[in-house]
Amino acid sequence: MQGQFLERRPRRGAVDELARKKALRMVPYGLYLLGCRRAEVRNPNDLHAYVVSWVTQTSFKPPMMVVGVGRSSHAHELISESRVFSLNFLGADQKDLAKRFFKEIERTDGHIAGAPYAVGPHSGCPLFLELPASIECEVVHMYDGENDHSVVVGKVVSVEVRHDAKPLTTSETGWSYAG
Amino acid sequence: MQGQFLERRPRRGAVDELARKKALRMVPYGLYLLGCRRAEVRNPNDLHAYVVSWVTQTSFKPPMMVVGVGRSSHAHELISESRVFSLNFLGADQKDLAKRFFKEIERTDGHIAGAPYAVGPHSGCPLFLELPASIECEVVHMYDGENDHSVVVGKVVSVEVRHDAKPLTTSETGWSYAG
Repeated sequence: MQGQFLERRPRRGAVDELARKKALRMVPYGLYLLGCRRAEVRNPNDLHAYVVSWVTQTSFKPPMMVVGVGRSSHAHELISESRVFSLNFLGADQKDLAKRFFKEIERTDGHIAGAPYAVGPHSGCPLFLELPASIECEVVHMYDGENDHSVVVGKVVSVEVRHDAKPLTTSETGWSYAG
Repeated sequence: MQGQFLERRPRRGAVDELARKKALRMVPYGLYLLGCRRAEVRNPNDLHAYVVSWVTQTSFKPPMMVVGVGRSSHAHELISESRVFSLNFLGADQKDLAKRFFKEIERTDGHIAGAPYAVGPHSGCPLFLELPASIECEVVHMYDGENDHSVVVGKVVSVEVRHDAKPLTTSETGWSYAG
């Protein structure tokens, strides 16, 4: 087994790209709208939302979540500045809603990319009211080493559940963000 | 909506427990055997394996993974000491195999809890040969704040894919490790 593996590697010390993609794409992921904001919010353009999938819990007591946030993203800039974010759980039937956040998004007082939001009472970040659930988090740690996505660790300070729903997952959407 | 939420909260600043469980259990998780070892391995008792589900990728270039590892676990002690681990991806039909690792496990030269393993060439951690894929990681960062599970960030240094398989997930097993 190990012999086969060594033969398949393109060069010593390098990880075979196809094998890596195959393995890392076995990890199941949900899809979320990460809501964030500038430190000071003067108008809706100081709010932002960003589709993420690299999410895991990392503590029961106190409840904490880890989110991978692209280092060069606008969301990364805003989270670094405000040290808060929301995580809005997309339901299985909300693929089209999620898609709207991949484009240039329009912001008004009550809508981002046409999706109604309220300002989170704890974080000031947008909570998307059509989504089954939202949490608000305070950033307790960010790790930026060689990783191209920041490891953002957030303590859950507020939870809002609106209705039951199966989560939207990358395997259902056919969108792959792993490997 | 916000009014309802505020009424439901048991006390100011606290997070409603039922709502929190419901929201955080919407996150899909796979199941993995985390393989680890003492800094110095003299016999199979210096190796260990531990079932984890709190896993996400956090970088494409270089490939990196985050794993939540219980602070009081034996795995946490070993990873802190050796700064390496393996992550072995359980297939959808390997629930019973996973179960064996919840009990006291027996270690011999070629088997842990009856599951055949090889010693990873890069990490020295056990790679489980019946599982569809394994990766080896070098720890680049650990975050231990208030969180009851360490945020362990590992750089992927080796990948071994053995066969195609759907991942074993917490929703399929009925095991819930979130909330």
